[in-house]
Amino acid sequence: MRRVITTLLATSLLATPALAQDDLRAEAAELFKPLPSTIPSVNENPITPEKIELGKALYFDPRLSASGVFSCYSCHNLATGGDDNLETSIGHGWQKGPRNAPTVLNSVLNEAQFWDGRAADLAEQAKGPVQAGVEMANTPDNVVATLSSMPDYVTMFSAAFEGDDAVSFDNMAKAIEAFEATLITPAPFDAWLNGDDAAMTDDAKAGLALFVEKGCVSCHEGVNVGGHGYYPFGLIEKPGADVLPEGDKGRFAVTETVDDEYVFRAAPLRNVGVTAPYFHSGKVWNLTTAVQIMAESQLGEALSDEEAAQIVAFLDALTGEVPEVTVPPLPAETDATPRPSAEIMPE
Amino acid sequence: MRRVITTLLATSLLATPALAQDDLRAEAAELFKPLPSTIPSVNENPITPEKIELGKALYFDPRLSASGVFSCYSCHNLATGGDDNLETSIGHGWQKGPRNAPTVLNSVLNEAQFWDGRAADLAEQAKGPVQAGVEMANTPDNVVATLSSMPDYVTMFSAAFEGDDAVSFDNMAKAIEAFEATLITPAPFDAWLNGDDAAMTDDAKAGLALFVEKGCVSCHEGVNVGGHGYYPFGLIEKPGADVLPEGDKGRFAVTETVDDEYVFRAAPLRNVGVTAPYFHSGKVWNLTTAVQIMAESQLGEALSDEEAAQIVAFLDALTGEVPEVTVPPLPAETDATPRPSAEIMPE
Repeated sequence: MRRVITTLLATSLLATPALAQDDLRAEAAELFKPLPSTIPSVNENPITPEKIELGKALYFDPRLSASGVFSCYSCHNLATGGDDNLETSIGHGWQKGPRNAPTVLNSVLNEAQFWDGRAADLAEQAKGPVQAGVEMANTPDNVVATLSSMPDYVTMFSAAFEGDDAVSFDNMAKAIEAFEATLITPAPFDAWLNGDDAAMTDDAKAGLALFVEKGCVSCHEGVNVGGHGYYPFGLIEKPGADVLPEGDKGRFAVTETVDDEYVFRAAPLRNVGVTAPYFHSGKVWNLTTAVQIMAESQLGEALSDEEAAQIVAFLDALTGEVPEVTVPPLPAETDATPRPSAEIMPE
Repeated sequence: MRRVITTLLATSLLATPALAQDDLRAEAAELFKPLPSTIPSVNENPITPEKIELGKALYFDPRLSASGVFSCYSCHNLATGGDDNLETSIGHGWQKGPRNAPTVLNSVLNEAQFWDGRAADLAEQAKGPVQAGVEMANTPDNVVATLSSMPDYVTMFSAAFEGDDAVSFDNMAKAIEAFEATLITPAPFDAWLNGDDAAMTDDAKAGLALFVEKGCVSCHEGVNVGGHGYYPFGLIEKPGADVLPEGDKGRFAVTETVDDEYVFRAAPLRNVGVTAPYFHSGKVWNLTTAVQIMAESQLGEALSDEEAAQIVAFLDALTGEVPEVTVPPLPAETDATPRPSAEIMPE
């Protein structure tokens, strides 16, 4: 039934634009949601200005890494769509990470974090890269020793958290989560959902209708146009190993259930136009190509060039405005601050 | 004669504070200069808002490096005093650079750039790390191809520079220089020089008097409290190889004159309190230790603990306020953008 309605919508969009647009908007309103106008609340982590300020400092601080080279910002660069524009990130010792770094933008609205959803929230997520040997290669103890050695950090932690042990690895993660919750990027699609007819081009509107009609929306729905639910990559037809490397079985590593082989969280599509390369493998640089691969592997559909271009026009309408973030002045090291080490530890 | 006056000043500072302070300020005004209240002009590179905006984007853009990992910001981090807090920077392929990264803050006011002064200005300097194999490992051709591939960059270059070939490696460097010229950090010392008695502590004032009296000022003078003139490291007594490694002969590599062995540009001391570790070798993390090494090696003076502490209090009064810099949204890649390569090329 949905397919019938949206097909009618798509074909009638040019004929009776005003009416068709209202119908499309009504349908879209059931499937998606505009971004909230305030900072989203987070489970068990009340967001306060003090926590945001601390989290921003931590987000920008390369001293969270063993080498002193990498901060959260390094791979989730707010200047380049909240990711690093690399196939997979380069970390400690010039090692390559296993999967493409997802954007931090709007990530607070995802159901779970990482490509396989192995972290329930951003606070849990933040602890991963700090400790991963191929990323920041640090230890919780060394992080706490580093932060405790700088009086300004101790003051900031005490302002943000209650209790005597304010400076802790858990609180570091919670503060980073609080800052990341502010990284919401309203886009033309939101303006259009909110009633501004002129916010999207006709191509973008036709692309939205196709996105719904063809079934992309079955996985990529909700406020983040994805980021909820797990689906096998290659539902209809498995892409080649150049796109879906055999060694990475996705959510299988989390659940150890055969059904979860090559299963990944549906990617949230906000800002997808500025976060190439695509897929967990980061093997595809062109968004049109990525859309075509998805249509074939997940829906068994070959898109026409026009259809693909219209869907890409819709996806480009998901590119939002990144909030203004000023570079925070960070506390200076003291004699007690552990020194950076670029050494690569054996596994 | 200067020594006599300043000794009198130092000893009389507590006895007749108001008068002595005016004398100290008068003497300091001859030796130093407060930071300008406007963006300094630069030779053959008129600073315009368009150039600053472009330069800021370039400064934050990791796509200036072959790997897509490093931007100017990586080693000249505006959150950590304009440098990277490492002994020597880590660059392409996890290679270590040969010398400690100096701060970008106020660097436009240095007489020349790099520890050996081999670049006359910041525009010349900016081209170095982009091409250095151990830093960003890129080529001018690849940089121009990268920037030309993004229409928004082409627009920004055309707005900032005249002529048909606006997108060029030279113009990239000039734009970066224009942005860097805005990174001026007024400090308590400037407020004090400008007449605010309360801007520096008594210890800092005593430290300033000692800085002049002991002769530190012979090399570290002018608006940047250094950054002008070249001097042998170890004028009176050469420090050990742990601080002054034998392999790095400083300015000798530039002039090939025996007199220039172990000669370096006197470090500009603004923000020295937040830019450990110290010296071209980056081997000393403690500022008091660095001051003591300097006193012994350059002046043949053993400082008392109190003297060293007062000089450090003066140096801390050189820590300035970094201008607010918002993270710029950068143009997105296109199909024509060269892809990042983490490969390490043989020499």
